[in-house]
Amino acid sequence: MLEPDTRLIVALDVSPDRAVEIAETLDGYVDGFKVGYEVVLAEGAAGIERVAEVLEESFLLVDLKTADIPEISRSIVERVSEAGANAAIVHGFVGPDVVEECAEVLPVFVVATMSHPGAREFYDRACRDIVKACDDIDGVVGYVAPATRPERVREVRKITDKLIASPGVGAQGAAPGDAVRAGADFEIVGRAITEAHDPVEAAKDLTRAMRTSRPAER
Amino acid sequence: MLEPDTRLIVALDVSPDRAVEIAETLDGYVDGFKVGYEVVLAEGAAGIERVAEVLEESFLLVDLKTADIPEISRSIVERVSEAGANAAIVHGFVGPDVVEECAEVLPVFVVATMSHPGAREFYDRACRDIVKACDDIDGVVGYVAPATRPERVREVRKITDKLIASPGVGAQGAAPGDAVRAGADFEIVGRAITEAHDPVEAAKDLTRAMRTSRPAER
Repeated sequence: MLEPDTRLIVALDVSPDRAVEIAETLDGYVDGFKVGYEVVLAEGAAGIERVAEVLEESFLLVDLKTADIPEISRSIVERVSEAGANAAIVHGFVGPDVVEECAEVLPVFVVATMSHPGAREFYDRACRDIVKACDDIDGVVGYVAPATRPERVREVRKITDKLIASPGVGAQGAAPGDAVRAGADFEIVGRAITEAHDPVEAAKDLTRAMRTSRPAER
Repeated sequence: MLEPDTRLIVALDVSPDRAVEIAETLDGYVDGFKVGYEVVLAEGAAGIERVAEVLEESFLLVDLKTADIPEISRSIVERVSEAGANAAIVHGFVGPDVVEECAEVLPVFVVATMSHPGAREFYDRACRDIVKACDDIDGVVGYVAPATRPERVREVRKITDKLIASPGVGAQGAAPGDAVRAGADFEIVGRAITEAHDPVEAAKDLTRAMRTSRPAER
């Protein structure tokens, strides 16, 4: 289910109605979809459910960047799982106990570090240790590392054989294929697809760019 | 609005219906209420709105432990602000740029560290630097530090004159007054009030405990 083929995950940072529409149109053309606060603040977990219901081939990754105490993080992931998510994104900096609790419920991608300048202050320093601390946890299927900073993707790739998903492609600045070449399995693309005149064509173009990118050796 | 009087903030980790009911009953008996994922996953921002609408005296703190990139964090806090929140909780670990972006929208309490064992892995090491990095940001009104670990509350108190709100009182293990004695301004109490036979009596009892606690000198 979570295996890379097109290598594309589409970030649906749009209204629930638009998210459902794009998910329906692109189901099967991309590996997966990512939904987060835009959908959840609009309709709660019901918004996640609506997107999950229209998917037959692509997977659904829920990105609330969960970072609460273990008990509450688990209950968030339980609710997300009930709504039909196939995997969840959980922050690594809150510690392996939070990650473990969530990964008992649903496959988890752990945030290893982030793309914005502030990530250099504290997150980057913990990045390697986060991956080392989480890599043996059952249910941890991969990591999130920024496409905009391929050196961080390479750093994570050196430590783990698990999946790497990289946001930041397109509007945020990374070129399609940059993260894959640095060792990522998936590139997460938002506006370049959701705001495209023809999202299917945009996805196909991006898929071609991914396919001609040669992944780094593991 | 955010000034401590009873020193009590009630965590409404219950269904939206129950949250509205408790908020209505306890409005004015406690300084504030905290709502988070239980309410938001049930009804989205509309759940926050329903609680905000019944409050006349107490404030409403929204706790999504926001920890996304600056642009998305800001949009989360904007939505929460529109729903009627008076302040938001944002993670410090993700860096001062995220905090600054959110604090332009709404008064922010910054998570300085957390109560669970995993917080010792990465968060504790950053705790002092987080407070130093965020203390001059306009709109940062305070910090969140765990009542279950009063030494951490004392550490934060030594660096800042801003407010400190401490979760973990009651079911999670801290005794009422522990955090205030260590320098906190608010103690955040959940089940000890929301599951009490008489929440008003429970809140009054806790308020008495807070009032006889002598806060640490600043």
